[in-house]
Amino acid sequence: MNVDGKAYRTIWLREDGRTVEIIDQTRLPHEFVTVVLRTLDDAVHAIRSMQVRGAPLIGVTAAYGVCLALGVDESDESFNAAYDALLASRPTAINLRWALGTMRGALSGAAGDDRVAVAYETAARIADDDVASCKAIGEHGAELFAGLARDKKEQKGAEPLNILTHCNAGWLATVDYGTALAPVYTAFDAGLALHVWVDETRPRNQGASLTAWELGQHGVPHTVIADNAGGHLMQHGRVDVCITGSDRTTSAGDVCNKIGTYLKALAAQDNGVPFYVALPHSTIDWCLSDGIADIPIEEREAREVTHISGLGEDGSVITVQVTPEGSPAANVAFDVTPARLVTGLITERGVADASAEGLVALYPERAE
Amino acid sequence: MNVDGKAYRTIWLREDGRTVEIIDQTRLPHEFVTVVLRTLDDAVHAIRSMQVRGAPLIGVTAAYGVCLALGVDESDESFNAAYDALLASRPTAINLRWALGTMRGALSGAAGDDRVAVAYETAARIADDDVASCKAIGEHGAELFAGLARDKKEQKGAEPLNILTHCNAGWLATVDYGTALAPVYTAFDAGLALHVWVDETRPRNQGASLTAWELGQHGVPHTVIADNAGGHLMQHGRVDVCITGSDRTTSAGDVCNKIGTYLKALAAQDNGVPFYVALPHSTIDWCLSDGIADIPIEEREAREVTHISGLGEDGSVITVQVTPEGSPAANVAFDVTPARLVTGLITERGVADASAEGLVALYPERAE
Repeated sequence: MNVDGKAYRTIWLREDGRTVEIIDQTRLPHEFVTVVLRTLDDAVHAIRSMQVRGAPLIGVTAAYGVCLALGVDESDESFNAAYDALLASRPTAINLRWALGTMRGALSGAAGDDRVAVAYETAARIADDDVASCKAIGEHGAELFAGLARDKKEQKGAEPLNILTHCNAGWLATVDYGTALAPVYTAFDAGLALHVWVDETRPRNQGASLTAWELGQHGVPHTVIADNAGGHLMQHGRVDVCITGSDRTTSAGDVCNKIGTYLKALAAQDNGVPFYVALPHSTIDWCLSDGIADIPIEEREAREVTHISGLGEDGSVITVQVTPEGSPAANVAFDVTPARLVTGLITERGVADASAEGLVALYPERAE
Repeated sequence: MNVDGKAYRTIWLREDGRTVEIIDQTRLPHEFVTVVLRTLDDAVHAIRSMQVRGAPLIGVTAAYGVCLALGVDESDESFNAAYDALLASRPTAINLRWALGTMRGALSGAAGDDRVAVAYETAARIADDDVASCKAIGEHGAELFAGLARDKKEQKGAEPLNILTHCNAGWLATVDYGTALAPVYTAFDAGLALHVWVDETRPRNQGASLTAWELGQHGVPHTVIADNAGGHLMQHGRVDVCITGSDRTTSAGDVCNKIGTYLKALAAQDNGVPFYVALPHSTIDWCLSDGIADIPIEEREAREVTHISGLGEDGSVITVQVTPEGSPAANVAFDVTPARLVTGLITERGVADASAEGLVALYPERAE
């Protein structure tokens, strides 16, 4: 997608064919800065510190992290150490495990210098596949939005379709296009009148900072709201559809996504608003069924709750403390939305019911 | 309640018997500053700018605003102008109308210089009545907490009772004691082991700033969480009871409170967690039944969403912008929680079912 009119991906191989460059998302929306990853440690740091975030992008960054490790030492020991370090960098996103497993599979037959070349080829393929998946999600979701807009036009006249999203599942969360925002971009580019309610998404404000920024760069009408506001908007008919991404989806259709997603799904159900989740197949964890019982939920440092960064009056980025001295804080990063609250899962293959049957119907190769 | 060991109310008549002093709540938790209200305009500004907030405290401040106006000009015209200006200062809280109506009733029989004396006596009585109401709410609610703690001890052992609250309905929202927090203080002072999850409460952060501050000053164990986190905590059995205040309660038991309350009530219902609302009778609007359709909801300026104030590293309070330049924001201040999601209403007379029958049983004088 475009930044100031120039096309970018969120991660790319540099001209040296070895080092990798990313957009440092901790600096957005106030500063657009790219960072070069030269070592495995750089990749682990980029994931852990959330310079890159979003399940699909984390997976691709981990794949390139393996490449950087093998570039120094192509042994199995080196691969295993990289695998472990990268897997531990974020505990919830399943793409991380998926991408690392894909790297392991590709490398298992390769030896010597070949291993490094195979690693880079595989990482590039994972990145390109993610772009293709997101593009397909955009097409399936846009079709769905067009149908909702037609229904709304018949019932209420020609207002724009009001879409609510939580966190950032836009192109910044992937390599390009996004998951939840891919249908928004596709529908918008096709001329559908739409408007996006952007949940701020405390504590890290990925909505207020990243989603608002990328929608703004693309010219999509949007309004930032506090995470608390969505229920009221739905009670008053001001939301036509909710769409979010997923960090891990169970085989039964439970969705683990940014903390607070569950609350919006409850409000959507209470008000008859459809609630869709957009995800590439790589976020499906076929080994897990019960999301609430079985998905490990990352707890992050309290400082993300007690402190907020933003643009000061002098134009510099400043961090301020919002809580009183001595008040502790807890910071759970994800929650699980049970499948019963999800209207449908939008994948690169189409829209599935949020159920074991629905997912297996789209992915018959997974039927036991 | 105590601030640094010294007892305070949130509003008090000064020694001159004419001007009024308040705690400037916009400066908390980082600075403890009091402000003198000398004129009607000062009172209107204090309410509008949220130097005072919380339905009960808004009502008392409005009552004193009338006194300040009559001190200059005791005519009916002066009263009516004050009434209108104060009523318009915050559109949602019903206490404002209730307090102003009480002032009008008291003044209707008084003439000349007497009017000013009657006004001050009435305002003082409204303040003292609020303190008595809050104290009684504390006793009724603490009894209820003790019962929940006994049940928990029998079922799970001796863990503390985990209470989740949204926004600030503590002593800072009233004249003293608080509404939702009155049972917390009463139970804590009686030795009950408890812990409070404090919702940050974006966009104005009354939880992170005011509730955390007053609980900390009183020594009550608490943890600040993002508004997004409560659903996850309830899914995992980490919340035993929710309790909030109310800015306006309909005769049918619908509760209008800080934006986001509805989302917590949905999560409580979905997880079998009791959801109580604490309120003095003055927040009951006996003229309204359907809260969602009929309660006017205040929309405040976008800047409260796009900007956040906090303590900078140099110890000064700084405001930073969290959204990208050019992204609009919307700021709805309240939402309505339908009575069907409310386990009970804790008033100064006891605990009522959240229904027309429940409320009339406690307030039989309101039966038609």
